[in-house]
Amino acid sequence: MRLLEKAIKEKGVVLPDNILKVGAFLNNQLDVALLKKVGKDIYKHFSDCGVTKILTVESSGIGLSCLTAQFFNCNVVFAKKSKTSNVSGEVYSADCFSYTHKNNNTLIVPAEFLSENDRVLILDDFLAHGEAVSALRKIISLSGATLVGVAIAIEKGFQGAGDKLRAEGVDLYSCAVVDKMTENKITFRHI
Amino acid sequence: MRLLEKAIKEKGVVLPDNILKVGAFLNNQLDVALLKKVGKDIYKHFSDCGVTKILTVESSGIGLSCLTAQFFNCNVVFAKKSKTSNVSGEVYSADCFSYTHKNNNTLIVPAEFLSENDRVLILDDFLAHGEAVSALRKIISLSGATLVGVAIAIEKGFQGAGDKLRAEGVDLYSCAVVDKMTENKITFRHI
Repeated sequence: MRLLEKAIKEKGVVLPDNILKVGAFLNNQLDVALLKKVGKDIYKHFSDCGVTKILTVESSGIGLSCLTAQFFNCNVVFAKKSKTSNVSGEVYSADCFSYTHKNNNTLIVPAEFLSENDRVLILDDFLAHGEAVSALRKIISLSGATLVGVAIAIEKGFQGAGDKLRAEGVDLYSCAVVDKMTENKITFRHI
Repeated sequence: MRLLEKAIKEKGVVLPDNILKVGAFLNNQLDVALLKKVGKDIYKHFSDCGVTKILTVESSGIGLSCLTAQFFNCNVVFAKKSKTSNVSGEVYSADCFSYTHKNNNTLIVPAEFLSENDRVLILDDFLAHGEAVSALRKIISLSGATLVGVAIAIEKGFQGAGDKLRAEGVDLYSCAVVDKMTENKITFRHI
């Protein structure tokens, strides 16, 4: 999606350790007009998939998920991050390592919010090593719901998780795929 | 707002320690159609205030803020919670005690996302003891921006922070005000 690529080029900052900082429009500050267009782009790809729920992770996936869910007329469920695996109540949980923060989290979704009748679209702001998507897939699997696909705003193509998902047959739609980035230049993949 | 009161009555759960659990529509699961209507209700109150930015706190304020920001045609900035006051970089920060989690957080907003030209609407899902709103007001004050008002989905009227803000002359708009709650009954304030 060229509009998103333009925002990444103009406002994104490449930091050491392959971190792409997009706090100006996707995280910390949310450019709602832009993200609504990103949401519409995601909707176009998955519009005929019968999505009943969008599943994301707090915090940075929530804004885009809500703006996208309007097009699907569905609810958003977000997994909370807990430092402990010691979770009580009826929940689905899965462990998740954060490369950005270099720590382990347990992602938790109350069981009442996902059922075997749900057709779930996973949505997140970034796809890098794929840890969050793996954990969310595990949660969907535990709930008995159906995974419709995975929607990502920015995929870091060079970190491989996206191509691995595609090879597995997952319907992955990334609005922008960064194939290479240096401090001065960001190169996008166009299929 | 009667629609929100209806959702609270039907789906809210009153827990010990004056906790009102609304995970089914406002937190954890987000009822996007309902929250869009709540956002429109907030917009009606502040539509002529020249709002340039909505300021909220991660995580549960983000969804409603994004859906509301569409009506104002403005961006959302969310404060991140940090366990440490030891914050580097150009940021505005303020301490905030969480009665729900019984811990202290420092709320942080990068300085680049708030300027003295901004007219800021604070938006949050709950107003109870007012700790988060106080911290966000401090951040706005540090940035030199103008506080337009405070929008809240659910105010716990019996905990007093709302009336204190009103007495200070803050333009506080709460879509639903709970005046009393027990396990079996929730009573709303209607002015």
